Amino acid sequence: METRTTISELGEFGLIERLASTISLQHPTSIKGIGDDAAVIENNEGNSQTLISTDLLLEGIHFDLTYFPLKHLGYKAAIVNFSDIYAMNGTPQQITVSIGVSNRFCIEDIEELYEGIKLACSTYKVDIIGGDTSASLTGLTISITCIGIVNTKTIAYRNTAKEGDLICVSGNLGAAYMGLQLLEREKTLFRQTNNAQPDFTGKEYILQRQLKPEARKDIIELLAKESIIPTSMIDISDGLSSETLHICTQSKVGCRIYEDKIPIDYQTASMANEFNMNLVTAALNGGEDYELLFTVPLSMHEKIATLEGISIIGHTTKESLGCNLITRDGQEFQLKAQGWNALHKND
Amino acid sequence: METRTTISELGEFGLIERLASTISLQHPTSIKGIGDDAAVIENNEGNSQTLISTDLLLEGIHFDLTYFPLKHLGYKAAIVNFSDIYAMNGTPQQITVSIGVSNRFCIEDIEELYEGIKLACSTYKVDIIGGDTSASLTGLTISITCIGIVNTKTIAYRNTAKEGDLICVSGNLGAAYMGLQLLEREKTLFRQTNNAQPDFTGKEYILQRQLKPEARKDIIELLAKESIIPTSMIDISDGLSSETLHICTQSKVGCRIYEDKIPIDYQTASMANEFNMNLVTAALNGGEDYELLFTVPLSMHEKIATLEGISIIGHTTKESLGCNLITRDGQEFQLKAQGWNALHKND
Repeated sequence: METRTTISELGEFGLIERLASTISLQHPTSIKGIGDDAAVIENNEGNSQTLISTDLLLEGIHFDLTYFPLKHLGYKAAIVNFSDIYAMNGTPQQITVSIGVSNRFCIEDIEELYEGIKLACSTYKVDIIGGDTSASLTGLTISITCIGIVNTKTIAYRNTAKEGDLICVSGNLGAAYMGLQLLEREKTLFRQTNNAQPDFTGKEYILQRQLKPEARKDIIELLAKESIIPTSMIDISDGLSSETLHICTQSKVGCRIYEDKIPIDYQTASMANEFNMNLVTAALNGGEDYELLFTVPLSMHEKIATLEGISIIGHTTKESLGCNLITRDGQEFQLKAQGWNALHKND
Repeated sequence: METRTTISELGEFGLIERLASTISLQHPTSIKGIGDDAAVIENNEGNSQTLISTDLLLEGIHFDLTYFPLKHLGYKAAIVNFSDIYAMNGTPQQITVSIGVSNRFCIEDIEELYEGIKLACSTYKVDIIGGDTSASLTGLTISITCIGIVNTKTIAYRNTAKEGDLICVSGNLGAAYMGLQLLEREKTLFRQTNNAQPDFTGKEYILQRQLKPEARKDIIELLAKESIIPTSMIDISDGLSSETLHICTQSKVGCRIYEDKIPIDYQTASMANEFNMNLVTAALNGGEDYELLFTVPLSMHEKIATLEGISIIGHTTKESLGCNLITRDGQEFQLKAQGWNALHKND
């Protein structure tokens, strides 16, 4: 009988790994394929390389148009791609935008979506150079590919962290996830209570983190200004836990992350409290933070510690020691990966 | 009141034009944006440029899995992107592959799809360097972006045909469209007649053109070998009529295409006859041929005429003379563009 393995049996990362294991590279210019935030292509004779990242966003899976304005969606769709390029210590320069739209959408809707994409592009100085538009049977599909450039000497991969490096993160974590929880709650209430309008006062920050995230261009510029070259870097789209494990597994190191060092905004904490949710879980597994997680040599400690908007949250260890979270009361827990499946099941 | 323009009012090309009109380029390296088969990015200091093309394929719109085997679909999805790069007189080198799959699909299905993509990549010497995999609520979504390289001196745009050029096409036209008609008929019969198996004897070629098309790498290599640099070029995905109009409109020239010069295979003609369809309509508007349509200076006539697999089908004229088809009996008809909407309505 024919074998039929369900996708949930393998999970997102298992599927990618299984597909990637059968793919090899032939071109000498294909420097880095599957397995990082972006692929890397050699430019001829230059001291720069081309970066390529791509993201597919599907209605009902990645976004809910009930509460996600199209302009914001366009902005976010572009931002998540820029974030992948920054995560290689590169600069996004161009994108292609492909959209599939059902007849539920009108031209003005698509223009609104594009308004958001164009706003992100003008803010981050990126050109829209092409794409594809198509009818779709149901819902909205957005596929964006971003092309960036990176200096060959300062490119930051996932698999190059060294034992004894400091682990750093930009901004704060868990806010976008709490924003999502809030929007989901208000959507349910709106339906149950005769269309009562929600009051979002005091929750603007977590909503903004969900609906209008930014990519950390400023952090990349700050690191460059301070002559800090990360030994490894990744952007946080699936949550701190997953991304830390990506770096550690690929770099063959272990790590210790300290719970009390994880940066969390006041609104995030307050919302988690209101929802009676574990705040650390939101920060570890919430995802969609689009912050940068990176490692630097221990010798950089003094320099990094003075930089605003960057927190040192732990350090790498020998691989054999595993990847652990140290709680406030000194207990150790093993970090666990969360793909999309895990996240959806735990909701 | 809010204006709501339906997408069908504008059509595919109208929508693209409307969106493109609001998009400008900022980066000096963004050589060519929306409006050709692929975008063009300058490489630093080199005599080559990077090409980027992207295609979004949606189940129920672009393919029907009732009769489209997943491996063939993967092959075709890759080929249509390679074709866009060849249409710039370039060489495809890398692709990213994003897929969205509902739980109707199992891991083995996705692997079969990838088998096809990998076969195309190994045949055309292209690397798979990245992508994105995601759950989807319904159906299968495939988004492929192709990165290619082109010599700055021999790149072929759409908007550079000159008045008095010869118009040439590779291979033959209308076969993929007739293959599609055949598959659609057999699908209906299969459902009506207790699952009777179709007999495809003598129709292998048109089926192959629909289910396993090839990109014309060989033609690009032939032109290079013969030192022929097309003055303009495009690949035929939407039909000869649409693509000729793209070249003429963007190059500000008119054209005369001669019906009796349009290359059509015997199986295509025989199938059109069986369906009682107008053969020229199939060749002009059928689409999915993935042949190359290009122009060369009139002085190339003798050289081009001797090349196997290339037909001279007409010539460009002054813009004011318009774009016309000359029928076998000498009548003139204006060529008309066909986007996806038109095609679907006329089926």
